[in-house]
Amino acid sequence: MASTAATLKDVAHAAGVAVSTASRALAGNPVVSQETSDRVRQCAEQLNYRPNAQARALRSSRSNIIGVTIPSLVNPYFAEMAAVIQEEANRAGISTIISSTSEDAERLIDSLHILSDQRVDGIIAVPYNGTEDSLAALDATGMPLVLVDRELPGNKHLSVASDSSAGLSSAVAHLLEKGNRRIGYLSGPMTTSTGVTRLEEFTAACHHFQLPEQPIYQGGYHREDGYRGTEWLLSQNVDAIIAGDSMMTVGALEACHKKGIAIGHDVALIGFDDQPIMRLQACPITVIDQQVATMGRLAFSLLHNLITDEGGSGKSPPSSIRTPTTLIIRASSDFDRSSTTDKEVRP
Amino acid sequence: MASTAATLKDVAHAAGVAVSTASRALAGNPVVSQETSDRVRQCAEQLNYRPNAQARALRSSRSNIIGVTIPSLVNPYFAEMAAVIQEEANRAGISTIISSTSEDAERLIDSLHILSDQRVDGIIAVPYNGTEDSLAALDATGMPLVLVDRELPGNKHLSVASDSSAGLSSAVAHLLEKGNRRIGYLSGPMTTSTGVTRLEEFTAACHHFQLPEQPIYQGGYHREDGYRGTEWLLSQNVDAIIAGDSMMTVGALEACHKKGIAIGHDVALIGFDDQPIMRLQACPITVIDQQVATMGRLAFSLLHNLITDEGGSGKSPPSSIRTPTTLIIRASSDFDRSSTTDKEVRP
Repeated sequence: MASTAATLKDVAHAAGVAVSTASRALAGNPVVSQETSDRVRQCAEQLNYRPNAQARALRSSRSNIIGVTIPSLVNPYFAEMAAVIQEEANRAGISTIISSTSEDAERLIDSLHILSDQRVDGIIAVPYNGTEDSLAALDATGMPLVLVDRELPGNKHLSVASDSSAGLSSAVAHLLEKGNRRIGYLSGPMTTSTGVTRLEEFTAACHHFQLPEQPIYQGGYHREDGYRGTEWLLSQNVDAIIAGDSMMTVGALEACHKKGIAIGHDVALIGFDDQPIMRLQACPITVIDQQVATMGRLAFSLLHNLITDEGGSGKSPPSSIRTPTTLIIRASSDFDRSSTTDKEVRP
Repeated sequence: MASTAATLKDVAHAAGVAVSTASRALAGNPVVSQETSDRVRQCAEQLNYRPNAQARALRSSRSNIIGVTIPSLVNPYFAEMAAVIQEEANRAGISTIISSTSEDAERLIDSLHILSDQRVDGIIAVPYNGTEDSLAALDATGMPLVLVDRELPGNKHLSVASDSSAGLSSAVAHLLEKGNRRIGYLSGPMTTSTGVTRLEEFTAACHHFQLPEQPIYQGGYHREDGYRGTEWLLSQNVDAIIAGDSMMTVGALEACHKKGIAIGHDVALIGFDDQPIMRLQACPITVIDQQVATMGRLAFSLLHNLITDEGGSGKSPPSSIRTPTTLIIRASSDFDRSSTTDKEVRP
């Protein structure tokens, strides 16, 4: 705690390279060989080198622009998140440029390079597992960075993510209470913290309520995944479906509409995120609500603190935030399964 | 035609200022006084100064980034347009940064400044009436520019816009054929070419079919406008509502859901743009489809031609495009009004 902080010079000396090379290596500049890069980073880690405050203080001037990368423009959850961040930034006199990564880790890395080249004052990013090195390299340049919606293994960055455990556990409890026994789950991709965590939480809830193994469809955050997964889960004779994000929920809606499956009668459906399309249904959809507007506001607030607190003010540093989730019960799941199980013997 | 093209030097000489001042004035740089700026632009116009090809040739290197400004992130029509442009750009090895202007002309001007400062290779913009000067100034810097969705008075820029006349005329004809007589219209804002043109086209179609004056709600491109406008039109005892864009259509859906008005029975509804929320309804919504994906692809293609055709290749210059609209008839309007007009005397 009381030891003198390591400088970039210390790191360069330990790695046996010039200070400029060490700087380039930590910034992820491709002109430095992989081998040298690895050695510099190892030394930086051993010396517990924390470049941020210094590097930030070196930034000559602010552009009053921040960058935001979201995984999809057509996902209404992320569209609302970006819109809220933009409104908050605008209120603070800051403009926003947005980059969409199409749920592709390579494109996120590309976007981060572009945004940092553009002299933005800071970046809010929705990350993928596997982009840890790129984000660490960005951090090493002193670029203020806040992750939102998803976290990365190790949680080395400031982040705002929702805690879906309460929402998912309430969803499973509610479905059981209504007499559903076979609950299918549309899982998000294992390349995202939300995909991994929500699947674990769904499985844990099933264990908790002593349910036998439930059918799980390994999907992704696209409508098509929700559509195909719903077809498959229906073929597995599920009573209820929980969709692990908003895009798969829309896909589930599409599949049921197309096949003439009556949501709220033939099958119970619980989705994610309280978007207009969930409410504006003949049978409105029960959702696990993540309070996306709150998440967007908090992410901007954390980033703004990082940007304005150049060089360290002695204020206590901001810390990562988990926002709560709640289950909003609507007609799509709020019916008694025992009264509809005999539907097939009716005329 | 055969006369020698005026150079920036000629313009500066005519205006009695330095070449650098003339350049700044044409670029809309605020350091130049309004008076000087006006004089330089007047001289440029008199000399028929066409800076684009020269200025483009002067651009030292490409960034392989284009800028896209859209009016709203949460409007699914513009989200899809931006997503298509991004996919097309990506296929051409070009990255995209997106800026949302929240249906605010001042923010568009701000965004244009930011994007051109960011050294993008070109810009696709959805304009507002009143931003003509800013877009002309951008053009004067040689920045490749394509307008999409909306045009500006005078049509001085390359643009891709839909021709809504066929769609609106078919919509009115279809509603009349089904026995509707009182057709309410939710109009977009008069600060956009789409708002102005569609209102004119709706009125022209009503004249053509010799309908008496129809109730018109002067709205905007927000859900709230569609909601309030629908409440008002229903109070005017309309048989049918045509909503002038996708966001107002969603607002109309919300108002009808909330008030328990049965779309496709109590009232006929025709909206704009074939988004999932229009299809995934108990009573699917008839829409005037603008083929947004085609518009996005064409806009990128025009911009890409401008960017890659530096200095002029002798190829025939690209020209503005109007894409057709079609009416997709669904249950929300496809019912006979005469069989439901006596609904109020039923028990």
